[in-house]
Amino acid sequence: MKHPLFPSRRHKMGMPPGSLVYVGERQAEKTSIHLTEYSESNQPFCDIVTDLQVLRNAQISPSASWVTVTGLNDAETIGQIAEIFQVPPLLAEDILNTDQRPKLQETEGNLFLIFKVFGWQEEGEIITRDQITLVVGSNFLLSLLEGDDGFLEPVRQRIEQGQGRLRKEGIDYLLYAITDIIVDHYFLVLEKLGGQIEALEEEISVEPTPQTLQHVYKVKREILLMQRGIWPAREVLGDLLRHESPLIGRAAETYLRDVYEHVIQVIDMLETLRELTTGMQDLYLSSLSYRMNEIMKVLTVIATIFIPLTFITSLYGMNFRFMPEIGWRWGYAFVWVLIVLVAGGLLLYFRRKRWV
Amino acid sequence: MKHPLFPSRRHKMGMPPGSLVYVGERQAEKTSIHLTEYSESNQPFCDIVTDLQVLRNAQISPSASWVTVTGLNDAETIGQIAEIFQVPPLLAEDILNTDQRPKLQETEGNLFLIFKVFGWQEEGEIITRDQITLVVGSNFLLSLLEGDDGFLEPVRQRIEQGQGRLRKEGIDYLLYAITDIIVDHYFLVLEKLGGQIEALEEEISVEPTPQTLQHVYKVKREILLMQRGIWPAREVLGDLLRHESPLIGRAAETYLRDVYEHVIQVIDMLETLRELTTGMQDLYLSSLSYRMNEIMKVLTVIATIFIPLTFITSLYGMNFRFMPEIGWRWGYAFVWVLIVLVAGGLLLYFRRKRWV
Amino acid sequence: MKHPLFPSRRHKMGMPPGSLVYVGERQAEKTSIHLTEYSESNQPFCDIVTDLQVLRNAQISPSASWVTVTGLNDAETIGQIAEIFQVPPLLAEDILNTDQRPKLQETEGNLFLIFKVFGWQEEGEIITRDQITLVVGSNFLLSLLEGDDGFLEPVRQRIEQGQGRLRKEGIDYLLYAITDIIVDHYFLVLEKLGGQIEALEEEISVEPTPQTLQHVYKVKREILLMQRGIWPAREVLGDLLRHESPLIGRAAETYLRDVYEHVIQVIDMLETLRELTTGMQDLYLSSLSYRMNEIMKVLTVIATIFIPLTFITSLYGMNFRFMPEIGWRWGYAFVWVLIVLVAGGLLLYFRRKRWV
Amino acid sequence: MKHPLFPSRRHKMGMPPGSLVYVGERQAEKTSIHLTEYSESNQPFCDIVTDLQVLRNAQISPSASWVTVTGLNDAETIGQIAEIFQVPPLLAEDILNTDQRPKLQETEGNLFLIFKVFGWQEEGEIITRDQITLVVGSNFLLSLLEGDDGFLEPVRQRIEQGQGRLRKEGIDYLLYAITDIIVDHYFLVLEKLGGQIEALEEEISVEPTPQTLQHVYKVKREILLMQRGIWPAREVLGDLLRHESPLIGRAAETYLRDVYEHVIQVIDMLETLRELTTGMQDLYLSSLSYRMNEIMKVLTVIATIFIPLTFITSLYGMNFRFMPEIGWRWGYAFVWVLIVLVAGGLLLYFRRKRWV
Amino acid sequence: MKHPLFPSRRHKMGMPPGSLVYVGERQAEKTSIHLTEYSESNQPFCDIVTDLQVLRNAQISPSASWVTVTGLNDAETIGQIAEIFQVPPLLAEDILNTDQRPKLQETEGNLFLIFKVFGWQEEGEIITRDQITLVVGSNFLLSLLEGDDGFLEPVRQRIEQGQGRLRKEGIDYLLYAITDIIVDHYFLVLEKLGGQIEALEEEISVEPTPQTLQHVYKVKREILLMQRGIWPAREVLGDLLRHESPLIGRAAETYLRDVYEHVIQVIDMLETLRELTTGMQDLYLSSLSYRMNEIMKVLTVIATIFIPLTFITSLYGMNFRFMPEIGWRWGYAFVWVLIVLVAGGLLLYFRRKRWV
Repeated sequence: MKHPLFPSRRHKMGMPPGSLVYVGERQAEKTSIHLTEYSESNQPFCDIVTDLQVLRNAQISPSASWVTVTGLNDAETIGQIAEIFQVPPLLAEDILNTDQRPKLQETEGNLFLIFKVFGWQEEGEIITRDQITLVVGSNFLLSLLEGDDGFLEPVRQRIEQGQGRLRKEGIDYLLYAITDIIVDHYFLVLEKLGGQIEALEEEISVEPTPQTLQHVYKVKREILLMQRGIWPAREVLGDLLRHESPLIGRAAETYLRDVYEHVIQVIDMLETLRELTTGMQDLYLSSLSYRMNEIMKVLTVIATIFIPLTFITSLYGMNFRFMPEIGWRWGYAFVWVLIVLVAGGLLLYFRRKRWV
Repeated sequence: MKHPLFPSRRHKMGMPPGSLVYVGERQAEKTSIHLTEYSESNQPFCDIVTDLQVLRNAQISPSASWVTVTGLNDAETIGQIAEIFQVPPLLAEDILNTDQRPKLQETEGNLFLIFKVFGWQEEGEIITRDQITLVVGSNFLLSLLEGDDGFLEPVRQRIEQGQGRLRKEGIDYLLYAITDIIVDHYFLVLEKLGGQIEALEEEISVEPTPQTLQHVYKVKREILLMQRGIWPAREVLGDLLRHESPLIGRAAETYLRDVYEHVIQVIDMLETLRELTTGMQDLYLSSLSYRMNEIMKVLTVIATIFIPLTFITSLYGMNFRFMPEIGWRWGYAFVWVLIVLVAGGLLLYFRRKRWV
Repeated sequence: MKHPLFPSRRHKMGMPPGSLVYVGERQAEKTSIHLTEYSESNQPFCDIVTDLQVLRNAQISPSASWVTVTGLNDAETIGQIAEIFQVPPLLAEDILNTDQRPKLQETEGNLFLIFKVFGWQEEGEIITRDQITLVVGSNFLLSLLEGDDGFLEPVRQRIEQGQGRLRKEGIDYLLYAITDIIVDHYFLVLEKLGGQIEALEEEISVEPTPQTLQHVYKVKREILLMQRGIWPAREVLGDLLRHESPLIGRAAETYLRDVYEHVIQVIDMLETLRELTTGMQDLYLSSLSYRMNEIMKVLTVIATIFIPLTFITSLYGMNFRFMPEIGWRWGYAFVWVLIVLVAGGLLLYFRRKRWV
Repeated sequence: MKHPLFPSRRHKMGMPPGSLVYVGERQAEKTSIHLTEYSESNQPFCDIVTDLQVLRNAQISPSASWVTVTGLNDAETIGQIAEIFQVPPLLAEDILNTDQRPKLQETEGNLFLIFKVFGWQEEGEIITRDQITLVVGSNFLLSLLEGDDGFLEPVRQRIEQGQGRLRKEGIDYLLYAITDIIVDHYFLVLEKLGGQIEALEEEISVEPTPQTLQHVYKVKREILLMQRGIWPAREVLGDLLRHESPLIGRAAETYLRDVYEHVIQVIDMLETLRELTTGMQDLYLSSLSYRMNEIMKVLTVIATIFIPLTFITSLYGMNFRFMPEIGWRWGYAFVWVLIVLVAGGLLLYFRRKRWV
Repeated sequence: MKHPLFPSRRHKMGMPPGSLVYVGERQAEKTSIHLTEYSESNQPFCDIVTDLQVLRNAQISPSASWVTVTGLNDAETIGQIAEIFQVPPLLAEDILNTDQRPKLQETEGNLFLIFKVFGWQEEGEIITRDQITLVVGSNFLLSLLEGDDGFLEPVRQRIEQGQGRLRKEGIDYLLYAITDIIVDHYFLVLEKLGGQIEALEEEISVEPTPQTLQHVYKVKREILLMQRGIWPAREVLGDLLRHESPLIGRAAETYLRDVYEHVIQVIDMLETLRELTTGMQDLYLSSLSYRMNEIMKVLTVIATIFIPLTFITSLYGMNFRFMPEIGWRWGYAFVWVLIVLVAGGLLLYFRRKRWV
């Protein structure tokens, strides 16, 4: 469940701005384009796009178009799409740079938003991370993702099946639906992390191993990386609500405020989790110290009792020719009495110290 | 006294907004509705409501109505009640989502508030947690709770018995009375937590066990979870005072300011408690380290004295045919002198080191 | 020097606001009232008040009156006094609730202030804590305290003896004189805490015991409790200076600004002390660890040298019939050589490791 | 990879302001001046400048001039250059004081900026640190560096080869290009530090040595020093964008905003890295404690089993004349039984404790 | 290098404000007054003042006067000087109270500033601390210091020798020159502390002793005390720049902004140093733990190998009459084989555990 701290960006140092170079790690993934065109009255049209002319038509058509692009390694195609939807070069560059900070920019009548997408992959208990770029116009929404866009499926289904208000409302409502599902996935990941933390709490109190703490550390690391991705999302949504863009209607604003509040809740929870991981590190260390004390007590009690006894017996194991006690009738018995006295005395001492 | 970090929300991912699905954990609890209708002149009317038409009448009647709903798993009924009192769908959804952040929203002439309710269950020393939603209109107050509303009993009694100003004043005063009793319960829980912390301080200084620190950790966890629930309540009340809603009169504002100050006081105290738990973790660790030192000193003193002595005696336990000392007249006496010298020397050394 | 975290408030849960119930802990203390009436020209009049009519007269008399009430368990009398000086019920309630947060409220031409009073009781090195409520009118100042008001004696003396400007200036100057002496006591307590911290620094570096750290913890606890009481006092004074109440003249404002700056200085110092106590906990732990290392080194050196030697001697203490070495002429000497070599080698090893 | 905390500044205490004294550490480096003059139409002119008159001409020529100065120990020359480009004395002093905080100042129609430059030297894995001063006029940009300006090479090449927009746009675009490459190097260093942290995480979990933690400490130190240099850069760029200087056009502003966002991202990442180093220190300590426990368990198990056994055998090694057991037929066998029982019992005990 | 946390202020509790009582610790130091009168045209006049009439003349003379007072225990003289330069009583009191927080106050056309002065005393490596009060009028600057004013010597020399602009510019420039030299000394002390921290870093990594950590603690303490003194200086200078007092000209403002920036830089550096000391405490503790592990490994390896061997030899040292092995031909050899096997096995085990 461990991510690289920074996706290694073969950074285009010194290149002029707007140079479109894909800096992500999934070179192999194919770029594929999907178009969903819908309006309140007609049955929505959904298809994979191979000819970019289709997008040009969609861009000028009055009905709402949702264009999803997955896989970003075909920089040229991305460049052309950016051109069709009038994304300025600097922002087009940001689409390909998948280590971007979430941000909002208003350009030539469009809104340009970047969010982080977190997901949970059940096998391997891995948090998946991705970056989604949303370009919002009055009649289109362009979403670009490096990886799989499966998590957007429910939104697409609601459009296709005419469920809810999606088909009736404008592009701003689609923007809401997408951000909502992104934030819902934040909650999902949080829940999973929370579950791991609770399991680790249990583990620490029962039988901590070094793996336990490394796991705690990894969870903390994940939390830090998520915080880095979600904190700015709060600003982005806050700005969106404040700026009163003409693209966002009053109704959608209400819905987006709901998403905004959820993001704040996620941030609160992440902070709580982070504080808990810190507490767990202390708990772990104390637990180890306590065990050490227990081990040392046993060693000390046993060693401290038997070492003097062995000295006594070893004393009478000496071979001196002139050792009066050796010859005594009750010498042996006397040694036993001594042993019992010494051992008993030490035991009493330890009992008083509460070690036994 | 341990709570799940996040109530598992079988989250309705990808569902259209306003879908009413109960996500709490008390599926079994029955939804029951209670109506208290009162005015200054008449004897108040209190009854359990089974026919929702009664609520419709109450909503338009000029006398003040307080509707309390407990148990939220009957999503349909809740939906109808929300409709009667003109709660917009997104907020109706929030009622059922019991892991909401405290918030204030003004909608269509109504106020919509969410607070966290904390209580103390004496048996098991458990902090109970609940969420209360308050919908405030000009002539009604609708309060919805997942669990038991027993803690509101004193308010209801004051209405029934005509005690204090409750019956004379408007709905805003009822809102005050409810928030006041919620915050009073915050103090109650704080007092209990404070008591536990004092008991733990005592325990750490007398005889710390690993359970002690786990208890400290649990208290810290509770504090963090309470902070998450109470911090936003401060904003909610602050906003309520700032926004000057027409629903809140000048008199009630004064009272609500009092509640606001109490919440700030609760937040201060929680912070103090949290800092104390951190200090206690250090205290615990140091206490363990000190005990370890004591144990090691005993082991070291005993072992360090007797191990060389045993070497000496063991030396003369060797069976070499040619060991001149063995035959000496005063060999044995000489060994004793040696033993006394070595032991005495070491004891002196330890005394100088202040180990004995 | 340890205080309860929260004065147990048998809280009046669910009671209507303004119910006067004393929630403090000094039930036994008698309520006594003291009146000091003074003007620039006349000799001041000072007496204990038993008939509340005297206060009613003072309230309307043009000369300045300072009424001090000590002991708050006679809720009824307090209620009457509050009425005489037109304190609204909610604030009257605050007087009796001695766990209030410092605050400022302006009501019907009066100022209502709550401060925490800290003092130092030499025997037992105890920080005393109290709450003072000040009601300031144009011609009177009412101060109410749970405990002893001995610390106000110097102010009273200055009035009686006509020292300084007290008698010449208005009620606002009296307010200044009282807040000034309260803050002076903050400095006094700080100085004592500082002294304790310096003593503890000394103790930790010389011979730390578990008591040392518990003392550090207690000092930290006191600092946290003081911070809780003094932080809000800053706001209170800041608000007083900002609000430009007609009751506070320009001259008094200058003096109050001086008090305000002192409070900020106290807050700075408390923060410094708190950071120091944290550093001391680390120092203590490291000191223990170092001692442990020293102990272990001694044990290890002695045990590691003599355990192999004892093995050697024990080897030749075996009783096998066929042990060639036993019969050798130089067997014993050889063993001694062996012993010297082993011991010397180990000593060299330890020297190289810097353990001896 | 360790830097001095503060470049020792043989500080000119008490000297009048504007005294030009080089306080850096690279006394030996020669001051060299380089001029790049370019306009959209003509081939750019690049040369090393030896006669300052060339700069005077460049300052008044309408075409854009980029003057780079490296090596600051020739205070007199720097002073003359500062005069040519109308840098006021106090700021000229700042150029030579290479331990300056990044800042922005607007003076007589010029902009004066100071940034920290961080770089990565592959051999020795060293972070290089430098200070760059930028003086921006309407037709010139003067950049002064203590050390090597190799990292600016890509910008110079883009001018020379007419790549991108550099030659077409004004001086503000050149400013952008320079700040952009500076911040790109921040990312580079971050990536390297991130890589080191990941290597250290690995090392701690596999086989921690004291070097590991010292390395962690050093990385933390580097991060702190970088934070000190980059935090103010954020303010500088923020001010630059807010102040709307006539020297910065709308287009360049967009580009600079991009740089500004990158700096915020760098700050976020540095903070994350810093938190991680703190977590690693805890991880390291716990890892050591755990190993200690393992070591002590082995010692305790072995010692605790054999010490009592050796006592038994040593008992029957005594030479008393009257020891009945010695003569018994099954005495030896009985001892063996005893040994097996004791050892077995202790092993069972340890197994129950989960030590074996 | 250790200071008292709070200069013990025999505080004048309950005294009327404006009572001039010296509360510092240098009772013995004599109060001495020095006057420097200068103007652009004439040779400056410098002398020790014994007759206060000289000051009265200077106060009304048009040429600039710089009055320096050192030693504050002659409260009466200070009071008279304060009167001459129209310092209000409350501020005059602040001069004598040498534990004041840095502050700025504007009074009757004058500026009143308090700063902390830190210096470095080479012998004993002591940070010296002092408080300087500056009273700035249109034609005079009065500076009052508890201790030695040697650090102001360079400014005085620049006046006397007509170096720089001091003599040409007004009093505001003198104020700049003084604050500049104060802040230069902050840098000096920082550099020394930085040097100590680097020495301690070295010490911890090579051979830490308890003294090392106590030194770290002391440095941290010094840093905290400096922070307390320098943080408010930032506000003071910031206010000075914002308030646009008629006493401060535009030119001097530019210079004072430079000082302001230096103070911010000092604050940044102090914060960095403080974070480093925290990191060093962890480093120290871990270093100790690591050494402990090393010690315990040696003990465990030696003890664990030889304790079982000694048991074996001790076994055959028993004197039972019937021990078949004793009489065997190869018994002794067999024991040796056993010893080698056991020792070898344990060594292998330890090697596998990487302890040898």
